[in-house]
Amino acid sequence: MSVAVAGFGVRRSSVAGGLPEDIDGLLVTAAENVRYLTGFSGSHGAVLIDRGGSGILATDGRYLERAAAEAPGVECVEARRATPALVEHAVTRGIARLGYDAGSVTVEGFDVIAAAAGDATTLVRGPRIVEALRAVKDPAELEAVSRACEITAAAFHAVIEGVGAGVTERELDWQLQAAMRANGAQGPAFDAIVAFGPHSAIPHHEPTDRPLARGDLMKFDFGACVDGYRADMTRTVVLGPAADWQRELHAQVAHLQAELRRAAVAGTLPRDLDAAMRKGLTGLGHDPLHGLGHGVGLAIHEDPFLTENSPAPPLEVGTVFTIEPGIYQPGRGGVRIEDTLVITESGESSALTETTRALLEV
Amino acid sequence: MSVAVAGFGVRRSSVAGGLPEDIDGLLVTAAENVRYLTGFSGSHGAVLIDRGGSGILATDGRYLERAAAEAPGVECVEARRATPALVEHAVTRGIARLGYDAGSVTVEGFDVIAAAAGDATTLVRGPRIVEALRAVKDPAELEAVSRACEITAAAFHAVIEGVGAGVTERELDWQLQAAMRANGAQGPAFDAIVAFGPHSAIPHHEPTDRPLARGDLMKFDFGACVDGYRADMTRTVVLGPAADWQRELHAQVAHLQAELRRAAVAGTLPRDLDAAMRKGLTGLGHDPLHGLGHGVGLAIHEDPFLTENSPAPPLEVGTVFTIEPGIYQPGRGGVRIEDTLVITESGESSALTETTRALLEV
Repeated sequence: MSVAVAGFGVRRSSVAGGLPEDIDGLLVTAAENVRYLTGFSGSHGAVLIDRGGSGILATDGRYLERAAAEAPGVECVEARRATPALVEHAVTRGIARLGYDAGSVTVEGFDVIAAAAGDATTLVRGPRIVEALRAVKDPAELEAVSRACEITAAAFHAVIEGVGAGVTERELDWQLQAAMRANGAQGPAFDAIVAFGPHSAIPHHEPTDRPLARGDLMKFDFGACVDGYRADMTRTVVLGPAADWQRELHAQVAHLQAELRRAAVAGTLPRDLDAAMRKGLTGLGHDPLHGLGHGVGLAIHEDPFLTENSPAPPLEVGTVFTIEPGIYQPGRGGVRIEDTLVITESGESSALTETTRALLEV
Repeated sequence: MSVAVAGFGVRRSSVAGGLPEDIDGLLVTAAENVRYLTGFSGSHGAVLIDRGGSGILATDGRYLERAAAEAPGVECVEARRATPALVEHAVTRGIARLGYDAGSVTVEGFDVIAAAAGDATTLVRGPRIVEALRAVKDPAELEAVSRACEITAAAFHAVIEGVGAGVTERELDWQLQAAMRANGAQGPAFDAIVAFGPHSAIPHHEPTDRPLARGDLMKFDFGACVDGYRADMTRTVVLGPAADWQRELHAQVAHLQAELRRAAVAGTLPRDLDAAMRKGLTGLGHDPLHGLGHGVGLAIHEDPFLTENSPAPPLEVGTVFTIEPGIYQPGRGGVRIEDTLVITESGESSALTETTRALLEV
């Protein structure tokens, strides 16, 4: 981990400081939130934060040794079921009103924690304090995301250099993974999209054994993961020479994406940026099939969401997010260009996946 | 997909036939359940099954073309939010009592579907019909799981053949992935555990840059994924020569695991097998740190769970599950041996990950 142990303590204090008056503690259950507040990277665990900012991390026997090693600054307890065990701790500590994560706890899970809370502790829907903190990256986080983005861009160039007719989507997916690994990634940030020809018109396409043919658009949507932090980048190129319709489609998307990157400055509302994309696409005669973008960090999709009706607050210095407009023509092909960006000290956005966005003809 | 379109229809009919009297339809939201009933493999989607067994699949614009291609036998509708959209369909179809998945719907998600249901349709906790069906594999599923297991075993041998001092856990993780891919896997079934020396005492360990040293135990817990179906296998070997304590530990686990495999026959209760493991481990003076095993299929952990107090019904012909006892000595090392097994027509269990369980000294 590149975050010092003290850093996790600061984050826990920020959560405690952000608790509304009517809540005395917060039960944190989403895996990325647990990692953000403690450093523990296992998939089973939960954290209780009280008003004083001290935390208890609960996990089961399979993860206990790992939790102690990864999260030395926080009290660790073993529990077969972490969440109700922490509610019992909250009851013992006299927490009268305990916030929980209604976006992560299932209806069944709620019954279990309600039984543990009994009459002594009231469960209250917690505010999205941790998600809001995570949207704005600290220097250690920015370092990890930047590194993941650099590895992503380098892998893109390493792979497209050797591309030729006959290679399959799955083979290129694997080549991207190998190139990212060779450059220091711990793995892929998510399941990559590699889409040739008409497949490029499918916004979320899973790589197949389709071989690349002369004249095919190639859409790559992928990223590396470093210390748990993720990159997200899309580039669309062609096994040239490009046809006129491909050039036109690509130019439209590239122009719109550049405009939206320039518009994404400190103080802008994510939903307004999404609205600008929708206006741009409909002006060109295309239906928007998806939102403009999303935050990126420990999760590949996190706050802020750049979508219609997004409640996300204005972008601020340190917010990391994607800008990824696309135009899709079913049966023919599609173009998407996506960067992971950060709002810098100047208030402008800067692409962390900084590499050519041109319609490369390989 | 190796499942014919008709096969998905049969599964949907089985769900309809299994609906209790007080439910007129089932809202299916867990991704693996959606895939099992339709063939659609995207991450965002939901299905509504009515009493007649006809289904509606809802997904958003990013996945619509893929849904139509993967699930030709089912009506597809586009909806930005699949779940409430399907509840509205249920209302329109006059479904008075609609079952939902309280283990997958979050508290927040429930509010959304409750608003969509209004007064016309009552939401009822649905029974785990799909999970119960998935626990017993049909021939097409068995074929995919078997293939995944064969690829896993082959990758194990390919990789340990070349192992020597100095290689890191991460490097071997990557070599396993490459070997599985080369043998036809679409990817890993889950994040592999590769643990050297004292790390092998951590039941769930994430691969690090620790280099392999002479005398280290090496624990590999990994598997391949084929057509969405997963394998799960653990083997523990040593960069020999092995020490006496390592041989003894390994012999204890191997003996217990073989006993438990023999005991896992049609008609046995999963919780009774788990109890037998606990008895065996405590008899040897060791604390059980985790359950005995779990079902494997479209998810890496699914019904039946072989754990204390598991409500799972008796094993039957076609049930696929793991048997994975382990002994862990913190700071020193640990041994786990795990197979993915199926109950065959004879009523006995057979390992699909059939390869040596010996303490190989490489």
